[in-house]
Amino acid sequence: MSHHSPGYSLSIRLRYPDTPGFLGRITSVIGQADGLIGAIDVVDSRNGTITRDLTVSASTVEHGQEIVKSLAAVEGLDVVHVSDRVFLMHLGGKLEIAARTPIKTRDDLSMAYTPGVARICEAIYKDPETAFSLTIKRNMVAVISDGSAILGLGNLGPKAAMPVMEGKAILFKEFGGVDAFPICLDTQDTEEIIKTCHHLAPTFGGINLEDISAPRCVEIEERLEAELEIPVFHDDQHGTAIVVLAALTNALKIVDKSASSIKVVINGAGAAGMAITKLLAAVGVSDMIVCDRGGAIHPGRTGLNGLKQWLAEHTNPSKKSGTLSDVIHGADVFVGVSSKDTLTVADVKNMGTDPVVFALANPDPEIRPELAAPYAKVIATGRSDYPNQINNVLCFPGLFRGLLDVRAREVNLEMKVAAAQAIAQTIPDDDLLTDYIVPSVFDRRVASSVAEAVARTAIETGSARREQVPGVPSP
Amino acid sequence: MSHHSPGYSLSIRLRYPDTPGFLGRITSVIGQADGLIGAIDVVDSRNGTITRDLTVSASTVEHGQEIVKSLAAVEGLDVVHVSDRVFLMHLGGKLEIAARTPIKTRDDLSMAYTPGVARICEAIYKDPETAFSLTIKRNMVAVISDGSAILGLGNLGPKAAMPVMEGKAILFKEFGGVDAFPICLDTQDTEEIIKTCHHLAPTFGGINLEDISAPRCVEIEERLEAELEIPVFHDDQHGTAIVVLAALTNALKIVDKSASSIKVVINGAGAAGMAITKLLAAVGVSDMIVCDRGGAIHPGRTGLNGLKQWLAEHTNPSKKSGTLSDVIHGADVFVGVSSKDTLTVADVKNMGTDPVVFALANPDPEIRPELAAPYAKVIATGRSDYPNQINNVLCFPGLFRGLLDVRAREVNLEMKVAAAQAIAQTIPDDDLLTDYIVPSVFDRRVASSVAEAVARTAIETGSARREQVPGVPSP
Repeated sequence: MSHHSPGYSLSIRLRYPDTPGFLGRITSVIGQADGLIGAIDVVDSRNGTITRDLTVSASTVEHGQEIVKSLAAVEGLDVVHVSDRVFLMHLGGKLEIAARTPIKTRDDLSMAYTPGVARICEAIYKDPETAFSLTIKRNMVAVISDGSAILGLGNLGPKAAMPVMEGKAILFKEFGGVDAFPICLDTQDTEEIIKTCHHLAPTFGGINLEDISAPRCVEIEERLEAELEIPVFHDDQHGTAIVVLAALTNALKIVDKSASSIKVVINGAGAAGMAITKLLAAVGVSDMIVCDRGGAIHPGRTGLNGLKQWLAEHTNPSKKSGTLSDVIHGADVFVGVSSKDTLTVADVKNMGTDPVVFALANPDPEIRPELAAPYAKVIATGRSDYPNQINNVLCFPGLFRGLLDVRAREVNLEMKVAAAQAIAQTIPDDDLLTDYIVPSVFDRRVASSVAEAVARTAIETGSARREQVPGVPSP
Repeated sequence: MSHHSPGYSLSIRLRYPDTPGFLGRITSVIGQADGLIGAIDVVDSRNGTITRDLTVSASTVEHGQEIVKSLAAVEGLDVVHVSDRVFLMHLGGKLEIAARTPIKTRDDLSMAYTPGVARICEAIYKDPETAFSLTIKRNMVAVISDGSAILGLGNLGPKAAMPVMEGKAILFKEFGGVDAFPICLDTQDTEEIIKTCHHLAPTFGGINLEDISAPRCVEIEERLEAELEIPVFHDDQHGTAIVVLAALTNALKIVDKSASSIKVVINGAGAAGMAITKLLAAVGVSDMIVCDRGGAIHPGRTGLNGLKQWLAEHTNPSKKSGTLSDVIHGADVFVGVSSKDTLTVADVKNMGTDPVVFALANPDPEIRPELAAPYAKVIATGRSDYPNQINNVLCFPGLFRGLLDVRAREVNLEMKVAAAQAIAQTIPDDDLLTDYIVPSVFDRRVASSVAEAVARTAIETGSARREQVPGVPSP
């Protein structure tokens, strides 16, 4: 099973004799090599020779190279050059800074810079809260990483993390109208990261932490959230947890079970597993068992780190021990935030009636959906090529839109629950299907609903500086 | 003498009976109150009543209030509302983040974000230098301040400094095509600022330090410039010095003197005075005396701080002591980076033939140009309402454009001299006039000349990562 992706797509320039049937031969060679053709453009046609650019998607880098090799073997066909579309797209970086008020004339200069700007500085000095209306703090979020846990790639350091953070900033703007600036720090020291965020705080209206490895990410977020006057949100923990709760809320409607009655097994006791546990507990899920590579976490286990010790004390009410396969017997819901192929078909068979399976490991889930499908009622993954994608993009743009709109001081548990409910409710109950429990990431209604819910909850919980619920600006 | 400025301009909405001559009465009331009318627009006209918006410039905030008071006193005239145009312009901040590659479809998402982005991360991990082409580091400068010396306002802290840094970022983009992001730090500790800049460095191609008080600014810049792999430039020191050298170069052509023959007196022994001294020395000016409030700095003076001790050892070759008035006898050039009214008419009279007076204190120069004019041959100030404005905007956009184009590792003395020469040479010798020694800040040729000169010099001095001199992109 191969998945073509524009993430592995090439732009191939070909020159060949303009004879009938030659283009057909080219497309069939690409087809035989299992390449997927996108656009076909003419670059040049003269003296009986034609030059074309073809966009071809492959499933891996090597696959792309094989497609090019097949083309090079065609007699009379000249492969002029091959460019990697993803690299082309990244040339020069993915963001730029734009002026909201251009300086084209001396009058502009006098207003946006000296001498006019001095009065704005003085106004902010007299009332620092006005920084929220008179500076970019109004709408600017810092996307901060130390590059220690980049996607599934691991600790590649700050420079290699930038393309991810730049992409995230685009999503903030595109879906939430939020300005986000990516900052990758040249330190992986917990205290240094915390101190740097303190120093950076005056510029921003919020901080989104990203791709910082556990357990440091938990301490960094908790400290900053407590110490700073602006909201701090570690997306890998809470963004995931919020979308899981949204998906679970709708899945439970389909299987007609209530949060308080279900038994949940979570595989993966890292920062995301912890955040999911806490958020599910907040909506009344009480029977949860969290597993790691050593099996179920329970109070009798020794050698548990701080996070796991907390889990041992707050989950697994019947104190079960054993492997994942042992404890999954009769479970209603499986949530995997662990790694490839850790859930077996037998495990799914052993779950209770109408099993709900969220296999979120990326890119390869805990169980392949086609294997689980005969036995599970609802399946979700982290991938875009299966139904029910659990994607953080459903949460963070709307969440920060709401936080900025009311100048929130924090992100609290109530706001996280409200965000999850808003995502879930984007799909009316009558429209829910087993393969439609989460809205599409391109569903424009999601961010504005999340923003409205978060802003309202911030006001209700006393975390807002501004008692007003504006809508999300249409992009 | 009042200076109307759009920096103090109001938008005034007036409603009045639409009778002949009423508008004339309004404009004459504003004229009598010494207000300067800009645009006049009709908002609404019905039932014999007309509503108009008038843009009126004043010279101070109080003056603006007086103009409004005069209008309110006119019978039959209703002042509907008054808004401050500078505050209006600042609402919501002056910058936004824009995507260079929008994410509108699932294909875009696969290329700019996961899974495609992973290959870019891996490429940068394997060769960190590619961060200069594949991330925003390519064209992004950090404008960093701690808010300790904001314009002429003093230590107002980081939040109040933001509007200045945002304005600076607009100028970077408008004149140099450089993306600049403003960061105001919540610390004024030298070591903390240095450490934070270290942590921030992977994201940026250069750092522009701004409005940091002396003497900390000197240590911070010197340390960072030595320790980081990207150029670090404190604009208040070197930007000023570069434009002074440019102006002096052209002034000397007018008075027909050479750098090595002149006697220069610099008033102000802060960071800017120090930077000017070093840059003038680099082009052969050897007879310089620097004064502070205690008079001439010479090796015999006690109680000098580190900066002044350096000046005592490296300037004032004839070891003169005394007040500014004492040592200015016979000087060819006066450069003031000090404060209001510190140079007297008698001092100018006592200078040598064809005195050159740069009175750069802002907003009130060391001597009012109209007082110096009868005796000085060439006069420059820091103000836009006199000829020969010494404005850093002439330097920093082009300087950083050049640094980024060749991925420079540093800003060295040779580049600063080259930048000054490029600014000076924008005006052909034949076009030079006593009141036209520096080009206009809106002269678009300046930034591209400076960029080209800086890039070339970076290559010649071995500071460039890239041996190529591209032109500045046209804005």
